[in-house]
Amino acid sequence: MDANTFREFAKEAVDYVANYLENVRECDVLPSIEPGYLCDLLPKTMPETPEHWKDVLKDMERVIKPGLTHWMSPHMHAYYRCGASYPSIVGDLLCNGINVIGLSWIASPACTELEVVVMDWLAKFLKLPEEFLHSHEGPGGGIIQGSASESILVALMAAREQAVKHWKQKHPEMSESDIRGKLVSYSSDQSNSCVEKAGVLGAVTMRLLPANDEFILTGEILEKAVLKDLEQGLIPLICIATLGTTGTCAYDDIPSLGAVCQKYNIWLHVDAAYAGSAFALEEFSHLRNGLELVESLNFNMHKFLMVNFDCAGMWLKDANKVVDSFNVDPIYLKHKYEGQNKMPDFRHWQIPLGRRFRALKVWVTFRTIGAEGLRAYIRKHIDLAKRFENFVLSDSRFEMVANRSLGLVCFRPKGDNLRTTELLNQLTERKQIYLIQAKRGNLHFLRFCICGMDPQEEDVDFAWKEIQSQLDVVLEKEFLNGVKNDVDIISQKFSKDVYINGTAPISEKSK
Amino acid sequence: MDANTFREFAKEAVDYVANYLENVRECDVLPSIEPGYLCDLLPKTMPETPEHWKDVLKDMERVIKPGLTHWMSPHMHAYYRCGASYPSIVGDLLCNGINVIGLSWIASPACTELEVVVMDWLAKFLKLPEEFLHSHEGPGGGIIQGSASESILVALMAAREQAVKHWKQKHPEMSESDIRGKLVSYSSDQSNSCVEKAGVLGAVTMRLLPANDEFILTGEILEKAVLKDLEQGLIPLICIATLGTTGTCAYDDIPSLGAVCQKYNIWLHVDAAYAGSAFALEEFSHLRNGLELVESLNFNMHKFLMVNFDCAGMWLKDANKVVDSFNVDPIYLKHKYEGQNKMPDFRHWQIPLGRRFRALKVWVTFRTIGAEGLRAYIRKHIDLAKRFENFVLSDSRFEMVANRSLGLVCFRPKGDNLRTTELLNQLTERKQIYLIQAKRGNLHFLRFCICGMDPQEEDVDFAWKEIQSQLDVVLEKEFLNGVKNDVDIISQKFSKDVYINGTAPISEKSK
Repeated sequence: MDANTFREFAKEAVDYVANYLENVRECDVLPSIEPGYLCDLLPKTMPETPEHWKDVLKDMERVIKPGLTHWMSPHMHAYYRCGASYPSIVGDLLCNGINVIGLSWIASPACTELEVVVMDWLAKFLKLPEEFLHSHEGPGGGIIQGSASESILVALMAAREQAVKHWKQKHPEMSESDIRGKLVSYSSDQSNSCVEKAGVLGAVTMRLLPANDEFILTGEILEKAVLKDLEQGLIPLICIATLGTTGTCAYDDIPSLGAVCQKYNIWLHVDAAYAGSAFALEEFSHLRNGLELVESLNFNMHKFLMVNFDCAGMWLKDANKVVDSFNVDPIYLKHKYEGQNKMPDFRHWQIPLGRRFRALKVWVTFRTIGAEGLRAYIRKHIDLAKRFENFVLSDSRFEMVANRSLGLVCFRPKGDNLRTTELLNQLTERKQIYLIQAKRGNLHFLRFCICGMDPQEEDVDFAWKEIQSQLDVVLEKEFLNGVKNDVDIISQKFSKDVYINGTAPISEKSK
Repeated sequence: MDANTFREFAKEAVDYVANYLENVRECDVLPSIEPGYLCDLLPKTMPETPEHWKDVLKDMERVIKPGLTHWMSPHMHAYYRCGASYPSIVGDLLCNGINVIGLSWIASPACTELEVVVMDWLAKFLKLPEEFLHSHEGPGGGIIQGSASESILVALMAAREQAVKHWKQKHPEMSESDIRGKLVSYSSDQSNSCVEKAGVLGAVTMRLLPANDEFILTGEILEKAVLKDLEQGLIPLICIATLGTTGTCAYDDIPSLGAVCQKYNIWLHVDAAYAGSAFALEEFSHLRNGLELVESLNFNMHKFLMVNFDCAGMWLKDANKVVDSFNVDPIYLKHKYEGQNKMPDFRHWQIPLGRRFRALKVWVTFRTIGAEGLRAYIRKHIDLAKRFENFVLSDSRFEMVANRSLGLVCFRPKGDNLRTTELLNQLTERKQIYLIQAKRGNLHFLRFCICGMDPQEEDVDFAWKEIQSQLDVVLEKEFLNGVKNDVDIISQKFSKDVYINGTAPISEKSK
């Protein structure tokens, strides 16, 4: 393909993307296909000779789009939001055009240096302790990793290798594997599955401690577990706390966890994948309490900060602890500025050797949106979630399961778990909105998260109307099946008559 | 930013990329900046209010481009090639426009299913044993990982966890950490640094066995090491063989390694990051010998197959061995088709939870280039490397260090290491071409790799002329400094008089 054909193809793809995003609200958010649908639509081998690019674009409509769950749709309310923005898409286009691999500083200085610049911009925007800045004289700084999973694994492995070195010096008679076998990590039972997986991958025992009634891990809970382990001769290694847990967006108590970690020399890592962006808002300054006690933290720019997936920021207070653990430098990566400057060789801060020029999409996004725009975007999500919360509170057939937190509302229809599951199945079957369930102990509930590229009040209203009407259906089925229900729920089962406090009647989805 | 501004911005970015790639040959391949250059060119904080996108594009020229090492330039000869192509850039643009995260099948079925389709296309194109195909009834299949590093680490960690389970059953009295402490991995001292790093990250002893005189790891070398370890009560775990080593693109002896691995129940992984693409060529069918004995293998589509970085294919003969090791499934990822179909949940095959829709760029590239086009592209690189090899052989001041292999030529000026280093410094200083050095034992040499997006014969000729002329300079300096040199080298030190066998006089770089 020559450059001129590329210009034509790429510009038509730009229009395809713009049209897709402008109209994604009108699609069913969930696809209507069965597993294996695609294998029947495509040939079994790649073509021998080139096909025309127009045929490929046509197949985006014929083959790909019918199999998409539309994360950019405002009717997406599952998982956590995955951000995207027009400037970020352009930023990554430029990254792909240049197509450098940032193996080292010399492998493309701009790739390393722009990452240093934007990670400092971001640390200031989030008001992180200054030890996390590259421009601070200390050994700290930020890096862009691919995912929260990788960031957490990096922290755990670095802590592990540091502990092995430390204990080996103190107890030369112990083997490295003896030491590793005694290491214990801690997190809460509310943390993301990638935390448990990090324990498996890092071959370190991971205790998922039961969070308190507010879904929070506290210093008290941690200290009890630590003392028990110390009694058994084990070595407390790392605590992975969460700001914005996956289930309910709860915030672990960083100040008290930090105090315990300092006392017992435990690495404190904070996974702020979802909630980290809120550090930027004055009204959430309490979320930053205790960050000065933290050794490392991560948060996802692809959640609230309008940068396309994948883009996970990670900060280290002392990057040498990671570099020292992971560095295996061969001659072919040496260059003349090696070690002579403050520019980091980020390959030692991460798992893979190669690195995309991800800083480019961050830079293009932040410059064209601006700090004010980013803060307004986060606040919009919070306001929309408040709107949904009010809907839930105004309908006595539903109950909140946890406090609304940022853009997430956790709720359920009153009654047993089966009703929650039935409601979810009903909603999923209809494909108009997409929610997922979570559970705490034995209690199942639904998570309603504000997602999509450009969510609006009308989308929240649409979702609530859909949820109400589908609860009607579930309750009617229960009634017809003679299922015993709480009388006060059944008496209100027709939502058509339930008006929502302080809101205009909900408009129909224009479809 | 609204959709129409995006159309305008993105289309201008498309032109920027096309212009960049059309003219990249004319830039110095290495940048003329000092570490920290960028921090002085950009503000210390992100802007409060939006800047115009045109200013950002202008800054691509003012701040980013001067700091690039141009991987897409045909004057890039360092590391290994990093592929890119126009259709691949468009494919990733579409991926970013859709911006889904493939957490599970239901999170966007097309994301999982297209990956199944293209990985089978690729397995057939490369003529891999059919056990590696998803469409085969067995438990094997292919996945797109971010990098060779991740693929190798996944294989090592899965092998480790499988071994722990196996030994724990046989010896319940052993603790898991006791078992892990006895595990030993093997690779050659010629393997990529990420292999050594995988040992560190996976906390498994990694023996980098000395390769033979042809830089090859053989079954014989492996078996000796295995027997020694068995004698000491250790547990041989995994052998990571390489097809296309980083230093010289040597091919480890897979059939003999495979036989030893079968005998001692060792997981055989093949890192074919660079050379894997050559499986597709009939004249390299010998490279596929022994692949039926392999448990897992990886190769980079972003090397020869014209797909943009990052895109690393990995195949497993029995994916359950990885899934069984890594699966930590929480309720929020469950969906109704879970476990009911042959569609893999790729999150269990990899380190991170999230996944980009990378299959899209592969699909767009393969369809618009076609199998014939891909094979022709690989062969072009081989032919260009042969051309360079002939230049080296025709000038008696140089020597080959290993056989030319695919697109890589390893050579050096005859004489001591200092001369090689001086020549490299001279070339790097002038920034016209970019090579790196490698070493074997104490012998330093230069690696000349055919890279860039569209390398041509004239680029190879240009590079050779540059190398010859800079050796002249080095030899002259040595002469003036009274350094003792081999007489037969000195007598030929002026390359202007040396004609290259069977080639026309080398043309000047048009700049």
